[in-house]
Amino acid sequence: MTFTYQINDDVVWNKDKKLLDKADRNKPEILKSKIQPVAIVEILPDEKKINGYKSAITKTKIQHLPQVLLKRDDSIILDLGDHYVGTFAIDIQSIGSPMDAPLFLKVKFAEVAAEIAADSAAYDGWLSRSWIQEEYIHLDVLPTTLKMPRRYSCRFIELSVVDTSPKWQVSFQNPVFTAESSVTMEQLPKDTLADAELEAICNVSVKTLMDCMQDVFEDGPKRDRRLWLGDLRLQALADYYTFNDVRLIKRGLYLFGGMTTSEGKIPANVFITPQLTPDDTFLFDYSLFFVTTLFDYIQHTNDVEVLEDLYPVAKKQIDLALLLVTEQGKLCLQDEWPVFIDWSNDFKKNTAGHGVMIYALKRFVELAKRQEDVQLQFYQEKLAQLVAYAKDYLFDATENLFIVAENEEINIVSQVWMILSEIMPPEMNKKILENTVKTLFPIEGIATPYTYHHVVEAFCIAGMKKEAVTLIKDYWGKMIDMGADTFWEAFKPEDPNFSPYGSPIVNSYCHAWSCTPPYLIRKYLLTKINK
Amino acid sequence: MTFTYQINDDVVWNKDKKLLDKADRNKPEILKSKIQPVAIVEILPDEKKINGYKSAITKTKIQHLPQVLLKRDDSIILDLGDHYVGTFAIDIQSIGSPMDAPLFLKVKFAEVAAEIAADSAAYDGWLSRSWIQEEYIHLDVLPTTLKMPRRYSCRFIELSVVDTSPKWQVSFQNPVFTAESSVTMEQLPKDTLADAELEAICNVSVKTLMDCMQDVFEDGPKRDRRLWLGDLRLQALADYYTFNDVRLIKRGLYLFGGMTTSEGKIPANVFITPQLTPDDTFLFDYSLFFVTTLFDYIQHTNDVEVLEDLYPVAKKQIDLALLLVTEQGKLCLQDEWPVFIDWSNDFKKNTAGHGVMIYALKRFVELAKRQEDVQLQFYQEKLAQLVAYAKDYLFDATENLFIVAENEEINIVSQVWMILSEIMPPEMNKKILENTVKTLFPIEGIATPYTYHHVVEAFCIAGMKKEAVTLIKDYWGKMIDMGADTFWEAFKPEDPNFSPYGSPIVNSYCHAWSCTPPYLIRKYLLTKINK
Repeated sequence: MTFTYQINDDVVWNKDKKLLDKADRNKPEILKSKIQPVAIVEILPDEKKINGYKSAITKTKIQHLPQVLLKRDDSIILDLGDHYVGTFAIDIQSIGSPMDAPLFLKVKFAEVAAEIAADSAAYDGWLSRSWIQEEYIHLDVLPTTLKMPRRYSCRFIELSVVDTSPKWQVSFQNPVFTAESSVTMEQLPKDTLADAELEAICNVSVKTLMDCMQDVFEDGPKRDRRLWLGDLRLQALADYYTFNDVRLIKRGLYLFGGMTTSEGKIPANVFITPQLTPDDTFLFDYSLFFVTTLFDYIQHTNDVEVLEDLYPVAKKQIDLALLLVTEQGKLCLQDEWPVFIDWSNDFKKNTAGHGVMIYALKRFVELAKRQEDVQLQFYQEKLAQLVAYAKDYLFDATENLFIVAENEEINIVSQVWMILSEIMPPEMNKKILENTVKTLFPIEGIATPYTYHHVVEAFCIAGMKKEAVTLIKDYWGKMIDMGADTFWEAFKPEDPNFSPYGSPIVNSYCHAWSCTPPYLIRKYLLTKINK
Repeated sequence: MTFTYQINDDVVWNKDKKLLDKADRNKPEILKSKIQPVAIVEILPDEKKINGYKSAITKTKIQHLPQVLLKRDDSIILDLGDHYVGTFAIDIQSIGSPMDAPLFLKVKFAEVAAEIAADSAAYDGWLSRSWIQEEYIHLDVLPTTLKMPRRYSCRFIELSVVDTSPKWQVSFQNPVFTAESSVTMEQLPKDTLADAELEAICNVSVKTLMDCMQDVFEDGPKRDRRLWLGDLRLQALADYYTFNDVRLIKRGLYLFGGMTTSEGKIPANVFITPQLTPDDTFLFDYSLFFVTTLFDYIQHTNDVEVLEDLYPVAKKQIDLALLLVTEQGKLCLQDEWPVFIDWSNDFKKNTAGHGVMIYALKRFVELAKRQEDVQLQFYQEKLAQLVAYAKDYLFDATENLFIVAENEEINIVSQVWMILSEIMPPEMNKKILENTVKTLFPIEGIATPYTYHHVVEAFCIAGMKKEAVTLIKDYWGKMIDMGADTFWEAFKPEDPNFSPYGSPIVNSYCHAWSCTPPYLIRKYLLTKINK
């Protein structure tokens, strides 16, 4: 998720069986539904669509699929009509003379049309080629039912006949995609939004979230496919306002709580198969989001048992973070525990990290009060120091903007996280954000819905609801205009063909951290849009 | 096997359950043995070796395989030390950080080094690409034991890591190839030949035959993998003098006998899986070889039951062939029932076909005598007419060579099949072949061990044992010089890089019709070479 891989192979891990057992008890049942393709499509260039391609329905009706006979170098593209996550099966037979050679078949699964158009062999980005959803299969005996064992994330399925023999052709029949998720659309609130554009954005958000809700909250079902804390936090917020199915949140909290380093630090992400394995990647802000995710969960559920179990882990993350805070209240980040904030490394993140620290510590103090922690006062004092430092050294009162202390850089993420940390009075927050819009907008160089989420939430906190709605429509709405069935891992409106990986073929087009509009809208903006 | 595909999709097939049941009862048990690679090798150019490449043992010992860590674009080649047919399994684990992406692996199986060197993607020959023994495999979870379900024919196994991730590498362990055949080397006669070169040729022949002896006599275990009559005939002859395991011969005869067209014609080949299926390919000479193969089998086994069961089928092939013979004794071949003789279409085959007709009819007459066929005299008369026609119209008594009547073409296959049909007295046969050597040798334009076999056998029939031995050594011995572990489907000494398919990557390097030297040597040449 970050551009810099961390390798920390000397970490000693503690696994807390009691906590991990509780994670296991909240393992969801995976619900399955049979999806049949709705059309046979072709892929056409269209510069207005995602990465320059769109799908178009062909003259051949999907009902006539078995009559389409394919030979060497022929291919056909099935369209499921929407984005799904699951497994695929199809009946295959040979037509003509006896089958005198194996069938050699390529099956490509694509979330968006551009992935079909992309040449997999040409991909030479740094991210693993193994994420390209493309299989080469030899079938020695037909007829057969091809049941593909792996799980895919897709809307389009391209069947390419590498070869038959000159004596026979291939016919496909009964394609079935078995979609998987731990939730169903039945669980959603029944009301709709008055604003059709926002309603559409919410629907795509919900589909995105649903397709990421599997055995854990996955960051993306096509790629990475694991539980990241940064995504878990946002998925949980979106879930409270949509499916309201808290099992995966509880499971996620116990998974992180149950696997910590010998010093008590939680990893930025964990792997589930073949066995629970914490990744050797550590992010300062992600560790703190364990605290805020626990806070949000307790706010929502009042689940005392979870708080009792996980408060010590939350406290440990705060304690570890506070080791980096001077008595003056200055946060001194360390290279081995970087702050994520955003993929981009084109701006300094120290002030934003300072904002995250205050944001998390404020929530922790609430939990500490509730737990009657004897050290409550210590944390309150630390919080006060951090706030004071931010006001005294990170705020340019002339410009009414936050700066990065080291080089007086003024960037968007500093303003956003300082607004989210709510250290200024509301009218000052608004003034800061208005200045931000005036001097730093339109946003450029930011490719993550994750950061756009925080910008929108900052607008909400600062009472700038109109700007919040506009940004949601401009950013998430633009993805829909470009053909999104689910929201993406990466999107830079000023450079719509941007891929962080050198090719869109490994981009994730259903990515959890983009699913938050229902949360933003339903928590902050309903009065605005329904007025 | 022929260069021209036949498609006859209007054929009505009769399946004789009684005969096919007997075929089934002679299904052999497949014997399995575990083979461990003997070395890690690299592939190097060497213009003296098969298709320009050889293998060379690397510095890394096979025992140290698990210590070889592979990342993106790394590969390693395992050498089984000899050619085998069977299945492959290997243990795979990830080394380094947790496995944060699937492993994407390419596994290529090669009978000869040149197949490893060849770029599969560049193959654009007419023969199906699906025969290239190369699999692409995603493994989502490591460690695992990869058990590959398909059967391969190979000596070399290349493991290529398409990708891991920057955070971990792959280690391979316990590679095991489970070799399969219906016979074992234990069944072979224990004596060896005094001539080391011929002994080596016999050993490679036997390995070739063994690797083709599976559920049926396969033509080639890498490609085609089915029962062709032309191969069955030669495999049976070789088997009598080596493994002397007659089950597959009996099974093959019953399979062909049990599946005939509504007019009684047997197909040139049959498929065994998923169910018994005759191919819609018909070859004049192959149909007649049903008769000669039955004759050879009865000579060897005196199996009365088989003769009783299959004599009517043999008779039908003769009757169908005789429909093409005029009262004058002229064979008039038809396009829809072509004579194979050889792959090459650069020479006329009518006279060779005429020779095959006499060759087969002579043997049928012997069977007819034994069966006291009331039509015996009819067949004897037909034989006499065919012989007379050959002598009167197909023999140039000035040149002492057989010609093709239509255009007076003189070619090798005409001489060879007329010698094999034994219509001339021995001294004339010798004269004809001496003229053949003088005027038509060295052999050019012939790529099949199948035809070279018939040339050698013609030398034997004509009493030219020295020339027979020389040709065996020049042709089969040359393949060994070029690195053969088993003998090949195609070999043109004057053009050693010849491939009938546009690329050696789909050539079969273990092909039944090249396995006959033990038959030729032990039937005709032992006194010569052991003198």
